[in-house]
Amino acid sequence: MRDAYHDELDALTEQLVEMTRLVRSAISRATTALLDADLHLAESVISQDEEVNRIFAEIETSIFELMARQQPVAVDLRMVIAALRMGTDLERMGDLAEHVAKVARLRHPESAIPPEIRDTILEMGQIAERLITKTGSCIASRDVDTAMELEADDDAMDKLHRRLFKVLMAKDWKYGVEPAIDVTLIGRYYERYADHAVRVAHDVVYLVTGSRPQDVTTV
Amino acid sequence: MRDAYHDELDALTEQLVEMTRLVRSAISRATTALLDADLHLAESVISQDEEVNRIFAEIETSIFELMARQQPVAVDLRMVIAALRMGTDLERMGDLAEHVAKVARLRHPESAIPPEIRDTILEMGQIAERLITKTGSCIASRDVDTAMELEADDDAMDKLHRRLFKVLMAKDWKYGVEPAIDVTLIGRYYERYADHAVRVAHDVVYLVTGSRPQDVTTV
Repeated sequence: MRDAYHDELDALTEQLVEMTRLVRSAISRATTALLDADLHLAESVISQDEEVNRIFAEIETSIFELMARQQPVAVDLRMVIAALRMGTDLERMGDLAEHVAKVARLRHPESAIPPEIRDTILEMGQIAERLITKTGSCIASRDVDTAMELEADDDAMDKLHRRLFKVLMAKDWKYGVEPAIDVTLIGRYYERYADHAVRVAHDVVYLVTGSRPQDVTTV
Repeated sequence: MRDAYHDELDALTEQLVEMTRLVRSAISRATTALLDADLHLAESVISQDEEVNRIFAEIETSIFELMARQQPVAVDLRMVIAALRMGTDLERMGDLAEHVAKVARLRHPESAIPPEIRDTILEMGQIAERLITKTGSCIASRDVDTAMELEADDDAMDKLHRRLFKVLMAKDWKYGVEPAIDVTLIGRYYERYADHAVRVAHDVVYLVTGSRPQDVTTV
Protein backbone atom coordinates (compact mmCIF):
# COMPACT_ATOMS: atom_id res chain seq x y z
CA MET A 1 0.00 0.00 0.00
CA ARG A 2 2.71 2.40 1.07
CA ASP A 3 4.68 1.57 -2.12
CA ALA A 4 1.77 2.16 -4.46
CA TYR A 5 1.40 5.52 -2.72
CA HIS A 6 4.98 6.50 -3.46
CA ASP A 7 4.59 5.28 -7.04
CA GLU A 8 1.68 7.69 -7.34
CA LEU A 9 3.78 10.57 -6.00
CA ASP A 10 6.52 9.68 -8.52
CA ALA A 11 3.94 9.57 -11.28
CA LEU A 12 2.98 13.16 -10.38
CA THR A 13 6.60 14.23 -10.90
CA GLU A 14 6.70 12.47 -14.27
CA GLN A 15 3.46 14.12 -15.37
CA LEU A 16 4.78 17.55 -14.40
CA VAL A 17 8.02 16.92 -16.31
CA GLU A 18 5.94 15.84 -19.31
CA MET A 19 4.01 19.12 -19.06
CA THR A 20 7.31 21.05 -19.15
CA ARG A 21 8.30 19.14 -22.32
CA LEU A 22 5.03 20.00 -24.00
CA VAL A 23 5.05 23.69 -23.09
CA ARG A 24 8.72 23.92 -24.11
CA SER A 25 7.90 22.49 -27.52
CA ALA A 26 4.87 24.81 -27.73
CA ILE A 27 6.82 28.03 -27.13
CA SER A 28 9.59 26.88 -29.47
CA ARG A 29 7.16 26.21 -32.31
CA ALA A 30 5.15 29.35 -31.54
CA THR A 31 8.29 31.48 -31.84
CA THR A 32 9.20 29.91 -35.18
CA ALA A 33 5.61 30.25 -36.40
CA LEU A 34 5.72 33.92 -35.48
CA LEU A 35 9.07 34.68 -37.10
CA ASP A 36 8.46 32.61 -40.26
CA ALA A 37 4.72 33.34 -40.55
CA ASP A 38 4.24 29.55 -40.59
CA LEU A 39 0.52 28.89 -40.38
CA HIS A 40 0.85 25.11 -40.16
CA LEU A 41 3.18 25.36 -37.18
CA ALA A 42 0.93 27.92 -35.48
CA GLU A 43 -2.05 25.60 -35.89
CA SER A 44 -0.10 22.72 -34.37
CA VAL A 45 0.62 24.76 -31.22
CA ILE A 46 -3.03 25.78 -30.94
CA SER A 47 -4.43 22.28 -31.38
CA GLN A 48 -1.89 20.60 -29.10
CA ASP A 49 -2.58 22.81 -26.08
CA GLU A 50 -5.46 20.44 -25.34
CA GLU A 51 -2.89 17.78 -24.42
CA VAL A 52 -1.34 20.05 -21.76
CA ASN A 53 -4.78 20.70 -20.28
CA ARG A 54 -5.57 17.00 -20.28
CA ILE A 55 -2.44 16.09 -18.31
CA PHE A 56 -3.19 18.84 -15.79
CA ALA A 57 -6.73 17.52 -15.33
CA GLU A 58 -5.23 14.06 -14.68
CA ILE A 59 -2.85 15.54 -12.13
CA GLU A 60 -5.72 17.28 -10.32
CA THR A 61 -7.74 14.06 -10.20
CA SER A 62 -4.77 12.02 -8.94
CA ILE A 63 -4.04 14.57 -6.24
CA PHE A 64 -7.62 14.62 -5.04
CA GLU A 65 -7.80 10.83 -4.88
CA LEU A 66 -4.40 10.61 -3.25
CA MET A 67 -5.32 13.09 -0.53
CA ALA A 68 -8.68 11.45 0.09
CA ARG A 69 -7.16 7.95 0.36
CA GLN A 70 -3.85 8.66 2.05
CA GLN A 71 -2.79 11.19 4.64
CA PRO A 72 0.29 12.75 3.10
CA VAL A 73 2.44 14.59 5.66
CA ALA A 74 5.67 16.56 5.62
CA VAL A 75 7.47 16.40 2.27
CA ASP A 76 4.71 14.27 0.68
CA LEU A 77 2.09 16.85 1.61
CA ARG A 78 4.34 19.58 0.24
CA MET A 79 4.67 17.52 -2.95
CA VAL A 80 0.92 17.39 -3.59
CA ILE A 81 0.42 21.07 -2.75
CA ALA A 82 3.38 22.06 -4.92
CA ALA A 83 2.21 19.79 -7.75
CA LEU A 84 -1.17 21.55 -7.80
CA ARG A 85 0.51 24.94 -8.04
CA MET A 86 3.11 23.80 -10.58
CA GLY A 87 0.42 22.24 -12.75
CA THR A 88 -1.58 25.48 -12.68
CA ASP A 89 1.45 27.49 -13.79
CA LEU A 90 2.47 25.02 -16.51
CA GLU A 91 -1.06 24.91 -17.86
CA ARG A 92 -0.97 28.71 -18.09
CA MET A 93 2.37 28.58 -19.92
CA GLY A 94 0.72 26.37 -22.51
CA ASP A 95 -1.99 29.01 -22.92
CA LEU A 96 0.61 31.74 -23.36
CA ALA A 97 2.44 29.77 -26.09
CA GLU A 98 -0.95 29.29 -27.73
CA HIS A 99 -1.58 33.06 -27.55
CA VAL A 100 1.72 33.70 -29.36
CA ALA A 101 0.71 31.16 -32.02
CA LYS A 102 -2.68 32.83 -32.41
CA VAL A 103 -1.06 36.17 -33.23
CA ALA A 104 1.06 34.36 -35.87
CA ARG A 105 -2.12 32.83 -37.31
CA LEU A 106 -4.02 36.12 -37.23
CA ARG A 107 -1.37 37.97 -39.27
CA HIS A 108 -0.56 35.13 -41.68
CA PRO A 109 0.60 35.34 -44.51
CA GLU A 110 2.33 38.44 -43.13
CA SER A 111 4.68 38.17 -40.16
CA ALA A 112 3.52 40.06 -37.05
CA ILE A 113 7.16 40.87 -36.35
CA PRO A 114 8.88 43.78 -38.14
CA PRO A 115 12.51 43.09 -39.18
CA GLU A 116 14.01 45.42 -36.52
CA ILE A 117 12.78 43.30 -33.64
CA ARG A 118 13.14 39.78 -35.03
CA ASP A 119 16.36 39.34 -33.07
CA THR A 120 14.74 40.41 -29.82
CA ILE A 121 11.78 38.06 -30.27
CA LEU A 122 14.08 35.21 -31.23
CA GLU A 123 16.10 35.81 -28.06
CA MET A 124 12.95 35.97 -25.94
CA GLY A 125 11.89 32.64 -27.41
CA GLN A 126 15.30 31.14 -26.66
CA ILE A 127 15.29 32.38 -23.08
CA ALA A 128 11.77 31.02 -22.64
CA GLU A 129 12.98 27.61 -23.86
CA ARG A 130 16.03 27.73 -21.61
CA LEU A 131 13.87 28.62 -18.61
CA ILE A 132 11.38 25.83 -19.10
CA THR A 133 14.12 23.30 -19.83
CA LYS A 134 15.82 24.18 -16.54
CA THR A 135 12.46 24.12 -14.75
CA GLY A 136 11.87 20.59 -16.06
CA SER A 137 15.29 19.49 -14.80
CA CYS A 138 14.61 21.04 -11.40
CA ILE A 139 11.34 19.15 -11.05
CA ALA A 140 12.97 15.85 -12.05
CA SER A 141 16.08 16.25 -9.88
CA ARG A 142 14.66 18.45 -7.09
CA ASP A 143 17.75 20.57 -7.52
CA VAL A 144 17.40 23.74 -5.47
CA ASP A 145 20.57 25.42 -6.77
CA THR A 146 19.41 25.29 -10.40
CA ALA A 147 15.99 26.52 -9.31
CA MET A 148 17.56 29.62 -7.81
CA GLU A 149 19.60 30.23 -10.97
CA LEU A 150 16.50 30.78 -13.06
CA GLU A 151 16.19 34.32 -11.87
CA ALA A 152 19.15 35.40 -14.00
CA ASP A 153 17.34 34.14 -17.10
CA ASP A 154 14.18 35.86 -15.97
CA ASP A 155 16.12 39.12 -15.56
CA ALA A 156 17.43 38.68 -19.11
CA MET A 157 13.84 38.26 -20.30
CA ASP A 158 12.76 41.45 -18.51
CA LYS A 159 15.65 43.30 -20.14
CA LEU A 160 14.57 42.15 -23.61
CA HIS A 161 11.00 43.10 -22.77
CA ARG A 162 12.13 46.64 -21.92
CA ARG A 163 14.21 46.76 -25.13
CA LEU A 164 11.08 45.87 -27.08
CA PHE A 165 9.18 48.84 -25.61
CA LYS A 166 12.09 51.12 -26.39
CA VAL A 167 11.95 50.15 -30.07
CA LEU A 168 8.16 50.50 -30.18
CA MET A 169 8.24 53.97 -28.64
CA ALA A 170 11.21 55.26 -30.65
CA LYS A 171 10.49 58.16 -32.99
CA ASP A 172 11.58 56.11 -36.01
CA TRP A 173 9.00 53.32 -35.45
CA LYS A 174 7.40 53.26 -38.88
CA TYR A 175 4.92 50.40 -38.67
CA GLY A 176 2.05 52.21 -37.02
CA VAL A 177 -0.29 51.12 -34.28
CA GLU A 178 -1.45 47.62 -35.26
CA PRO A 179 2.01 45.97 -35.26
CA ALA A 180 2.81 47.91 -32.07
CA ILE A 181 -0.22 46.31 -30.40
CA ASP A 182 0.78 42.84 -31.62
CA VAL A 183 4.31 43.28 -30.35
CA THR A 184 3.11 44.68 -27.02
CA LEU A 185 0.95 41.62 -26.42
CA ILE A 186 3.58 39.16 -27.67
CA GLY A 187 6.18 40.73 -25.41
CA ARG A 188 3.85 40.37 -22.48
CA TYR A 189 3.17 36.69 -23.30
CA TYR A 190 6.90 35.84 -23.26
CA GLU A 191 7.48 37.82 -20.10
CA ARG A 192 4.59 36.10 -18.31
CA TYR A 193 5.78 32.71 -19.60
CA ALA A 194 9.13 33.40 -17.92
CA ASP A 195 7.47 34.49 -14.66
CA HIS A 196 5.48 31.27 -14.50
CA ALA A 197 8.62 29.18 -15.16
CA VAL A 198 10.30 30.90 -12.21
CA ARG A 199 7.24 30.26 -10.02
CA VAL A 200 7.39 26.56 -10.85
CA ALA A 201 11.08 26.47 -9.97
CA HIS A 202 10.28 28.25 -6.69
CA ASP A 203 7.79 25.51 -5.93
CA VAL A 204 10.62 22.98 -6.29
CA VAL A 205 12.51 24.98 -3.64
CA TYR A 206 9.38 24.93 -1.46
CA LEU A 207 9.03 21.20 -1.98
CA VAL A 208 12.61 20.53 -0.90
CA THR A 209 13.11 23.14 1.81
CA GLY A 210 9.59 23.88 3.03
CA SER A 211 9.77 27.57 2.22
CA ARG A 212 9.32 29.40 -1.04
CA PRO A 213 11.46 32.27 -2.34
CA GLN A 214 9.60 35.51 -3.01
CA ASP A 215 7.93 35.23 -6.42
CA VAL A 216 8.75 37.81 -9.04
CA THR A 217 6.10 40.32 -9.88
CA THR A 218 6.43 42.63 -12.83
CA VAL A 219 4.36 45.12 -14.74
CA MET B 1 -11.43 19.04 18.13
CA ARG B 2 -13.84 18.52 15.27
CA ASP B 3 -15.43 21.95 15.99
CA ALA B 4 -12.15 23.81 15.97
CA TYR B 5 -11.52 22.14 12.62
CA HIS B 6 -14.75 23.48 11.15
CA ASP B 7 -14.02 26.89 12.61
CA GLU B 8 -10.75 26.83 10.69
CA LEU B 9 -12.56 25.93 7.46
CA ASP B 10 -15.00 28.81 8.06
CA ALA B 11 -12.06 31.12 8.70
CA LEU B 12 -10.71 30.20 5.25
CA THR B 13 -13.98 31.30 3.68
CA GLU B 14 -13.85 34.59 5.58
CA GLN B 15 -10.27 35.23 4.50
CA LEU B 16 -11.17 34.58 0.86
CA VAL B 17 -14.14 36.95 1.10
CA GLU B 18 -11.84 39.54 2.64
CA MET B 19 -9.48 39.10 -0.33
CA THR B 20 -12.39 39.75 -2.72
CA ARG B 21 -13.17 42.98 -0.81
CA LEU B 22 -9.60 44.17 -1.07
CA VAL B 23 -9.20 43.38 -4.77
CA ARG B 24 -12.58 44.97 -5.50
CA SER B 25 -11.50 48.15 -3.77
CA ALA B 26 -8.15 47.96 -5.60
CA ILE B 27 -9.63 47.76 -9.12
CA SER B 28 -12.17 50.47 -8.26
CA ARG B 29 -9.48 52.88 -7.07
CA ALA B 30 -7.14 51.91 -9.91
CA THR B 31 -9.83 52.75 -12.48
CA THR B 32 -10.47 56.14 -10.88
CA ALA B 33 -6.73 56.81 -10.62
CA LEU B 34 -6.40 56.02 -14.31
CA LEU B 35 -9.31 58.18 -15.47
CA ASP B 36 -8.58 61.12 -13.16
CA ALA B 37 -4.77 60.85 -13.31
CA ASP B 38 -4.90 60.70 -9.51
CA LEU B 39 -1.39 59.91 -8.29
CA HIS B 40 -2.34 59.63 -4.63
CA LEU B 41 -5.01 57.03 -5.38
CA ALA B 42 -2.67 55.10 -7.68
CA GLU B 43 -0.06 54.97 -4.91
CA SER B 44 -2.65 53.70 -2.44
CA VAL B 45 -3.48 50.75 -4.73
CA ILE B 46 0.20 49.94 -5.21
CA SER B 47 1.06 50.05 -1.51
CA GLN B 48 -2.02 48.13 -0.36
CA ASP B 49 -1.44 45.13 -2.61
CA GLU B 50 0.89 43.88 0.12
CA GLU B 51 -2.18 43.28 2.32
CA VAL B 52 -3.71 40.95 -0.30
CA ASN B 53 -0.47 38.99 -0.51
CA ARG B 54 -0.28 38.76 3.27
CA ILE B 55 -3.77 37.25 3.58
CA PHE B 56 -2.99 34.75 0.85
CA ALA B 57 0.20 33.71 2.67
CA GLU B 58 -1.90 33.19 5.81
CA ILE B 59 -4.38 31.08 3.85
CA GLU B 60 -1.59 28.91 2.48
CA THR B 61 -0.13 28.39 5.95
CA SER B 62 -3.53 27.54 7.45
CA ILE B 63 -4.25 25.05 4.68
CA PHE B 64 -0.94 23.31 5.09
CA GLU B 65 -1.38 23.01 8.86
CA LEU B 66 -4.97 21.93 8.48
CA MET B 67 -4.11 19.17 6.02
CA ALA B 68 -1.17 17.98 8.10
CA ARG B 69 -3.22 17.86 11.31
CA GLN B 70 -6.61 16.71 10.02
CA GLN B 71 -7.63 14.42 7.20
CA PRO B 72 -10.17 16.46 5.30
CA VAL B 73 -12.35 14.33 3.05
CA ALA B 74 -15.20 14.95 0.57
CA VAL B 75 -16.48 18.52 0.69
CA ASP B 76 -13.89 19.58 3.28
CA LEU B 77 -11.06 18.32 1.08
CA ARG B 78 -12.62 20.12 -1.88
CA MET B 79 -12.79 23.25 0.28
CA VAL B 80 -9.05 23.30 1.01
CA ILE B 81 -8.10 22.51 -2.59
CA ALA B 82 -10.52 25.14 -3.90
CA ALA B 83 -9.30 27.68 -1.33
CA LEU B 84 -5.73 27.25 -2.55
CA ARG B 85 -6.79 27.84 -6.14
CA MET B 86 -9.13 30.74 -5.27
CA GLY B 87 -6.42 32.40 -3.21
CA THR B 88 -3.99 32.13 -6.12
CA ASP B 89 -6.46 33.76 -8.50
CA LEU B 90 -7.43 36.52 -6.06
CA GLU B 91 -3.80 37.30 -5.35
CA ARG B 92 -3.25 37.65 -9.11
CA MET B 93 -6.28 39.97 -9.38
CA GLY B 94 -4.62 42.21 -6.80
CA ASP B 95 -1.50 42.29 -9.00
CA LEU B 96 -3.55 43.20 -12.05
CA ALA B 97 -5.24 46.10 -10.24
CA GLU B 98 -1.76 47.18 -9.16
CA HIS B 99 -0.58 47.03 -12.80
CA VAL B 100 -3.43 49.36 -13.82
CA ALA B 101 -2.45 51.74 -11.01
CA LYS B 102 1.18 51.66 -12.14
CA VAL B 103 0.24 52.83 -15.63
CA ALA B 104 -1.72 55.69 -14.03
CA ARG B 105 1.35 56.58 -11.95
CA LEU B 106 3.72 56.31 -14.94
CA ARG B 107 1.74 58.79 -17.04
CA HIS B 108 0.86 61.22 -14.23
CA PRO B 109 0.18 64.18 -14.45
CA GLU B 110 -1.23 63.18 -17.85
CA SER B 111 -4.01 60.61 -18.09
CA ALA B 112 -3.04 57.42 -19.96
CA ILE B 113 -6.58 57.32 -21.36
CA PRO B 114 -7.55 59.44 -24.39
CA PRO B 115 -11.05 61.00 -24.18
CA GLU B 116 -12.55 58.69 -26.84
CA ILE B 117 -12.10 55.59 -24.73
CA ARG B 118 -12.79 56.91 -21.24
CA ASP B 119 -16.31 55.46 -21.37
CA THR B 120 -15.04 52.03 -22.37
CA ILE B 121 -12.44 51.95 -19.60
CA LEU B 122 -15.01 53.16 -17.07
CA GLU B 123 -17.35 50.36 -18.12
CA MET B 124 -14.55 47.78 -17.94
CA GLY B 125 -13.83 48.97 -14.41
CA GLN B 126 -17.50 48.71 -13.47
CA ILE B 127 -17.84 45.21 -14.88
CA ALA B 128 -14.67 44.19 -13.04
CA GLU B 129 -16.21 45.48 -9.79
CA ARG B 130 -19.50 43.73 -10.48
CA LEU B 131 -17.70 40.46 -11.20
CA ILE B 132 -15.63 40.48 -8.04
CA THR B 133 -18.59 41.55 -5.91
CA LYS B 134 -20.59 38.58 -7.21
CA THR B 135 -17.60 36.30 -6.75
CA GLY B 136 -17.39 37.40 -3.11
CA SER B 137 -21.09 36.64 -2.59
CA CYS B 138 -20.67 33.23 -4.22
CA ILE B 139 -17.83 32.33 -1.88
CA ALA B 140 -19.79 33.48 1.19
CA SER B 141 -23.08 31.82 0.21
CA ARG B 142 -21.78 28.91 -1.90
CA ASP B 143 -24.40 29.89 -4.42
CA VAL B 144 -23.86 27.90 -7.62
CA ASP B 145 -26.51 29.74 -9.67
CA THR B 146 -24.85 33.13 -9.18
CA ALA B 147 -21.49 31.55 -9.94
CA MET B 148 -22.75 30.41 -13.32
CA GLU B 149 -24.18 33.87 -14.05
CA LEU B 150 -20.75 35.46 -14.02
CA GLU B 151 -20.07 34.34 -17.54
CA ALA B 152 -22.48 36.93 -18.92
CA ASP B 153 -20.44 39.68 -17.24
CA ASP B 154 -17.25 38.12 -18.54
CA ASP B 155 -18.70 38.13 -22.07
CA ALA B 156 -19.53 41.82 -21.64
CA MET B 157 -15.90 42.42 -20.62
CA ASP B 158 -14.62 40.59 -23.71
CA LYS B 159 -16.91 42.70 -25.88
CA LEU B 160 -15.52 45.92 -24.39
CA HIS B 161 -12.01 44.56 -24.85
CA ARG B 162 -12.69 44.01 -28.56
CA ARG B 163 -14.22 47.50 -28.81
CA LEU B 164 -11.01 48.90 -27.37
CA PHE B 165 -8.92 47.25 -30.09
CA LYS B 166 -11.29 48.55 -32.74
CA VAL B 167 -10.75 52.13 -31.55
CA LEU B 168 -6.99 51.66 -31.33
CA MET B 169 -6.75 50.27 -34.85
CA ALA B 170 -9.15 52.74 -36.46
CA LYS B 171 -7.65 55.03 -39.09
CA ASP B 172 -8.57 58.11 -37.07
CA TRP B 173 -6.58 57.08 -33.97
CA LYS B 174 -4.52 60.22 -33.48
CA TYR B 175 -2.59 59.55 -30.30
CA GLY B 176 0.26 57.52 -31.75
CA VAL B 177 1.98 54.42 -30.47
CA GLU B 178 2.70 55.12 -26.79
CA PRO B 179 -0.92 55.60 -25.68
CA ALA B 180 -1.88 52.62 -27.88
CA ILE B 181 0.59 50.46 -25.95
CA ASP B 182 -0.74 51.71 -22.59
CA VAL B 183 -4.32 51.03 -23.61
CA THR B 184 -3.42 47.58 -25.00
CA LEU B 185 -1.88 46.57 -21.69
CA ILE B 186 -4.64 48.14 -19.59
CA GLY B 187 -7.27 46.36 -21.65
CA ARG B 188 -5.50 43.09 -21.11
CA TYR B 189 -5.29 43.68 -17.33
CA TYR B 190 -9.06 44.19 -17.05
CA GLU B 191 -9.81 41.21 -19.25
CA ARG B 192 -7.50 38.96 -17.22
CA TYR B 193 -9.01 40.31 -13.99
CA ALA B 194 -12.43 39.20 -15.25
CA ASP B 195 -11.12 35.76 -16.26
CA HIS B 196 -9.70 35.20 -12.79
CA ALA B 197 -13.00 36.26 -11.16
CA VAL B 198 -14.80 33.66 -13.26
CA ARG B 199 -12.24 31.01 -12.31
CA VAL B 200 -12.84 31.74 -8.63
CA ALA B 201 -16.60 31.44 -9.13
CA HIS B 202 -16.03 28.14 -10.94
CA ASP B 203 -14.15 26.92 -7.91
CA VAL B 204 -17.25 27.63 -5.82
CA VAL B 205 -19.17 25.38 -8.21
CA TYR B 206 -16.46 22.73 -7.82
CA LEU B 207 -16.63 23.08 -4.06
CA VAL B 208 -20.39 22.54 -3.96
CA THR B 209 -20.88 20.02 -6.77
CA GLY B 210 -17.51 18.29 -7.04
CA SER B 211 -16.97 19.24 -10.68
CA ARG B 212 -15.77 22.43 -12.24
CA PRO B 213 -17.20 24.14 -15.31
CA GLN B 214 -14.77 24.63 -18.19
CA ASP B 215 -12.66 27.71 -17.49
CA VAL B 216 -12.65 30.50 -20.00
CA THR B 217 -9.55 30.98 -22.07
CA THR B 218 -9.07 34.04 -24.18
CA VAL B 219 -6.39 35.70 -26.23
